[in-house]
Amino acid sequence: MADPRVAEHARILVNYSCKVKRNDFVVISANSESHELVVALATELGRVGAQFLVVDSDDRVSRAYALSADDETLSALPPQLVNLFKEVDVYIDVGSLSSPNTQEMSDVPTQKLQLSARARGPLAQVMGGKRWNLTLHPTRALAQEAKMSYDAYCDFVYSAILRDWLKFESEMQVLADKMRLAKKVRVVGKGTDITLSVEGRRPKVSAGDHNMPSGEVFVSPVDTDVEGEVYFDLPVLYLGHEIKGARLKFRDGVVVESRADEGEEFLKGMLEVDDGAKRLGELGIGMNRGIDRFTRNTLLDEKMGDTIHMAVGRAYEETGGTNRSAIHIDMIKSMKEGGAIHFDGVPVYEKGKFVWE
Amino acid sequence: MADPRVAEHARILVNYSCKVKRNDFVVISANSESHELVVALATELGRVGAQFLVVDSDDRVSRAYALSADDETLSALPPQLVNLFKEVDVYIDVGSLSSPNTQEMSDVPTQKLQLSARARGPLAQVMGGKRWNLTLHPTRALAQEAKMSYDAYCDFVYSAILRDWLKFESEMQVLADKMRLAKKVRVVGKGTDITLSVEGRRPKVSAGDHNMPSGEVFVSPVDTDVEGEVYFDLPVLYLGHEIKGARLKFRDGVVVESRADEGEEFLKGMLEVDDGAKRLGELGIGMNRGIDRFTRNTLLDEKMGDTIHMAVGRAYEETGGTNRSAIHIDMIKSMKEGGAIHFDGVPVYEKGKFVWE
Repeated sequence: MADPRVAEHARILVNYSCKVKRNDFVVISANSESHELVVALATELGRVGAQFLVVDSDDRVSRAYALSADDETLSALPPQLVNLFKEVDVYIDVGSLSSPNTQEMSDVPTQKLQLSARARGPLAQVMGGKRWNLTLHPTRALAQEAKMSYDAYCDFVYSAILRDWLKFESEMQVLADKMRLAKKVRVVGKGTDITLSVEGRRPKVSAGDHNMPSGEVFVSPVDTDVEGEVYFDLPVLYLGHEIKGARLKFRDGVVVESRADEGEEFLKGMLEVDDGAKRLGELGIGMNRGIDRFTRNTLLDEKMGDTIHMAVGRAYEETGGTNRSAIHIDMIKSMKEGGAIHFDGVPVYEKGKFVWE
Repeated sequence: MADPRVAEHARILVNYSCKVKRNDFVVISANSESHELVVALATELGRVGAQFLVVDSDDRVSRAYALSADDETLSALPPQLVNLFKEVDVYIDVGSLSSPNTQEMSDVPTQKLQLSARARGPLAQVMGGKRWNLTLHPTRALAQEAKMSYDAYCDFVYSAILRDWLKFESEMQVLADKMRLAKKVRVVGKGTDITLSVEGRRPKVSAGDHNMPSGEVFVSPVDTDVEGEVYFDLPVLYLGHEIKGARLKFRDGVVVESRADEGEEFLKGMLEVDDGAKRLGELGIGMNRGIDRFTRNTLLDEKMGDTIHMAVGRAYEETGGTNRSAIHIDMIKSMKEGGAIHFDGVPVYEKGKFVWE
């Protein structure tokens, strides 16, 4: 008998996150590891009366292609793919984070990854205004990355996913409302003193519509008005490359210095993908205290309570962001020890707590 | 190290069968079982400079959807899917025959399978004029169906696929040329005496362009001029249902009687899918003596030397056929014992040999 939590996960994705309705055309991006979830999604989509297509997003296939194709081939975006994505009502990605090997892309040259990332950029833009969700299905590889047994990892993931999202949403709204009234956000902490303008932006609560699990308040800052430096102590994995201990210095919104303890070359390469790659696309404040440990998976790590994250690259239009880029690399900072957040000079988070807690 | 025959198979599909060229947009239909072949195809498509999308055709997913969706949902064909297929240059199906369980659809009610088959019919029409290939990747389930070990089954499949197709093509052309000059084809044998008009039709040699492996001469008969009865002694599997020992009687081109030792109800249901389902879409003469045993897999079985097959349903326009249907069910007959084929009253095949052999 299949794990009943898989069916529950599918029901949340279809009915709560993506609000799929009769005759919607849904594209599911999946791989062999997420097969059980795709079967459960098919059941749920059938129940709702939606139509769907499953596309395969396997890293080994992408790697094989990247290694054999020339630069011109990797730089092309087939118009047929753009047309397909334009016609989609709902996009559910259960595959790109559920790799059977998180290191599969580790030996693909950065320059080739840049080319594909740049070419595929417009697809993300096309999806911007639609219903979409990025989630994960627990795999052995993800459990390994988290240094956990598979069964314990499944328990961990489902306890983060199967919860009362509406109740959690209203709790997070308190912070979003305060941020909406603020002009400047200042984050201080180890190796960090950075100030971002959020004036006129619309901070959002992420409670499962676009990420599952979720749990953060996020905003795209005014990308010309970011000053200072920030140290991200937690590792992130992007396109199979690890970036650890990244330090970025901003002037007039642009990264003017970048370093990292690991993956520095990759990070510098990604910052050169396009003009928008050197500007901040997102500031997020993790609020999900149900995620009780780091598991070296950005989707979950960036939602943890007592963390903040910032992403270089693509901004979220829904929050008023305007920065365009083919990339969006989230980098995470723990705030537990000595971190603080100020809105217009007034502390909202310090000593491991929000001031109203 | 991967089996080098997988890469060779991919090279044949891309370069010989589908003649893929730079900037072609290729859709690969696959499932988890055919993963190794998809990786090899990605390498080869990259080399050629083509673009591709992998779509998933997993039976467990299709079954879950069929069981939960209502009739209206199953009867719909999303226009987004039609548009995608219209824009495809090349379609390579490595998944639909490479199931991890050939019986996966066995408990889906026939009526539901009819609805989906009918709804998806136009997709096959759209592909008609394009480059496409249906192939298989050896799986444990296929080996089991063939009553063979997996390694022996791999040897069997690759010896059928990795051969000199151009040489074989010219050998088969002899029969096709004779058939082109004929008006009537008569097939006699156990339980069988049937005459088909092929007047004005264009018999074709199948040497790997649309099926891999291949090896047959086929034609779509004049579907109003088929008279007599035919007994198919070899079992076929269609949509996961087995049809064994089928007997069909034709009058004025239409099936007026149908029986089967197994799967009779399913067969009768399929014959009711649409008007064209009761007419003959194909007569094929298997010529591949490299396929040295029946393996209960239609793609291979119908290509065996000393067999003929006929399909009810969709005709091949390229041979001059006009019958339209959502289905195309090939049924196979062994000719080794007492079978004979006459063109306009003259024997071309009898006593286990073509007359020129």
